[in-house]
Amino acid sequence: MGQPDFEGSDGKVSRRKIKLTISYDGTGYGGFQIQPNAPTIQQHLEEAISNVAQEQIKIIGSGRTDAGVHARGQVIHFESGCSIPPERWPLALNRLLPADIVVVSAEEVPDSFHARFDVKAKTYQYLIYNAPIKDVFLRQYSWHVPQPLDDDLMDEASRYLSGRHDFTSFCSPKTEITDRVREISRADVSRSGQLIRLTFRGNGFLYNMVRIITGTLVEIGLKKRSPEEIKEILAARDREHAGPTAPPQGLCLWEVSYDNS
Amino acid sequence: MGQPDFEGSDGKVSRRKIKLTISYDGTGYGGFQIQPNAPTIQQHLEEAISNVAQEQIKIIGSGRTDAGVHARGQVIHFESGCSIPPERWPLALNRLLPADIVVVSAEEVPDSFHARFDVKAKTYQYLIYNAPIKDVFLRQYSWHVPQPLDDDLMDEASRYLSGRHDFTSFCSPKTEITDRVREISRADVSRSGQLIRLTFRGNGFLYNMVRIITGTLVEIGLKKRSPEEIKEILAARDREHAGPTAPPQGLCLWEVSYDNS
Repeated sequence: MGQPDFEGSDGKVSRRKIKLTISYDGTGYGGFQIQPNAPTIQQHLEEAISNVAQEQIKIIGSGRTDAGVHARGQVIHFESGCSIPPERWPLALNRLLPADIVVVSAEEVPDSFHARFDVKAKTYQYLIYNAPIKDVFLRQYSWHVPQPLDDDLMDEASRYLSGRHDFTSFCSPKTEITDRVREISRADVSRSGQLIRLTFRGNGFLYNMVRIITGTLVEIGLKKRSPEEIKEILAARDREHAGPTAPPQGLCLWEVSYDNS
Repeated sequence: MGQPDFEGSDGKVSRRKIKLTISYDGTGYGGFQIQPNAPTIQQHLEEAISNVAQEQIKIIGSGRTDAGVHARGQVIHFESGCSIPPERWPLALNRLLPADIVVVSAEEVPDSFHARFDVKAKTYQYLIYNAPIKDVFLRQYSWHVPQPLDDDLMDEASRYLSGRHDFTSFCSPKTEITDRVREISRADVSRSGQLIRLTFRGNGFLYNMVRIITGTLVEIGLKKRSPEEIKEILAARDREHAGPTAPPQGLCLWEVSYDNS
């Protein structure tokens, strides 16, 4: 497959493992992972990388993001015999990728690196636009909640999520994973004018977890529930006890952290 | 045309003049003003207002915006026999309008009010994203300039634009208006991280004026020209002396001011 100058002295093709940090606007996509009947981020990345590498490339992401969910710092890896220096990958790929996907950075990583298995922490941000009239410029990047939200109550409630808990109540019943214990190292809510920013950092997140947490925190912000109820919801281990699933467009995979980053 | 309960005691239909403040994402539009072969903001507004008013409504805007240009505070007026209280218009219209157009506020104005002729000042903002790699979330709301820009030089240059000048050099040669003297009361450039914000307030702007000024200021920020050259460009009264026309998506009609606002 490789060109002659990709071959090492032993005659074998020298393959490199490349880690890419990707940012994308998920508005027009059926999610990160390849699926039938909808354009996906993975598909565009694999096409662009394969085009540059001149070989069929399969990528591994840190995890999926749902349809309409965005990413500032999604991480993927792939292996290739292509000899272009790692720092050239962003420019080469950004020329081929659609306008709503961009490669932010690239680096060569050891053969042992794995974008999914090596994740130490992920940070998600959920953005709420809290004003009577919506902001057209944020319509695809926030959840518009017209009723006044008490962000202090939401922040207080978010503190009960910190630490190690069984998050069964905060994950979609469709989840096949049976171990639903996760550790949240950061959970906070802050307001800047009409924007409310929810930040969650943890060692892993279950399917729809941030969106169900957000839907529940919004009920608390609307004073339909008290912050302390988070404790009861966690203890119930039943999706029915939590609030609704917040819409996807407010959610953004902010950062994926590994041991050396 | 009017319903019986719209009629005044003299039997004539009582008509009201309504002023609306509109915000729109211009990405998907051929501009504000109705034209063949492209969807326009005006067309959507007239359809929605006519639908609510149950009569054919024609609107007058404070002025046009070009294809791809946005607005936070465009102002329009219309007359209608519809008796709904002015404060109800935003909710009624926002239900009918597409997601990228929103009515921010409405008020009844005196019969003498005219959205175009009564304009005292307009404020435009132009947003530049100045970083090597583009930001996917700002791609439709900023001009991505990857080379470093010296925003201090741009700000210095913008000061020469303040005051009363003949802006012939900074308007499209297509402009049919012969009086090209305008008064700029505010022109400044400020940076916040990778975002450079250009703000211009004046009693009127010529066709493409803010975009040509921006294109020229970017050449100054790139140190291809000196700030003082603005004086020479103004004096030349020739479009050829100014820089290129900046792309539309960075431009936003921020505010339209009238005597009582």
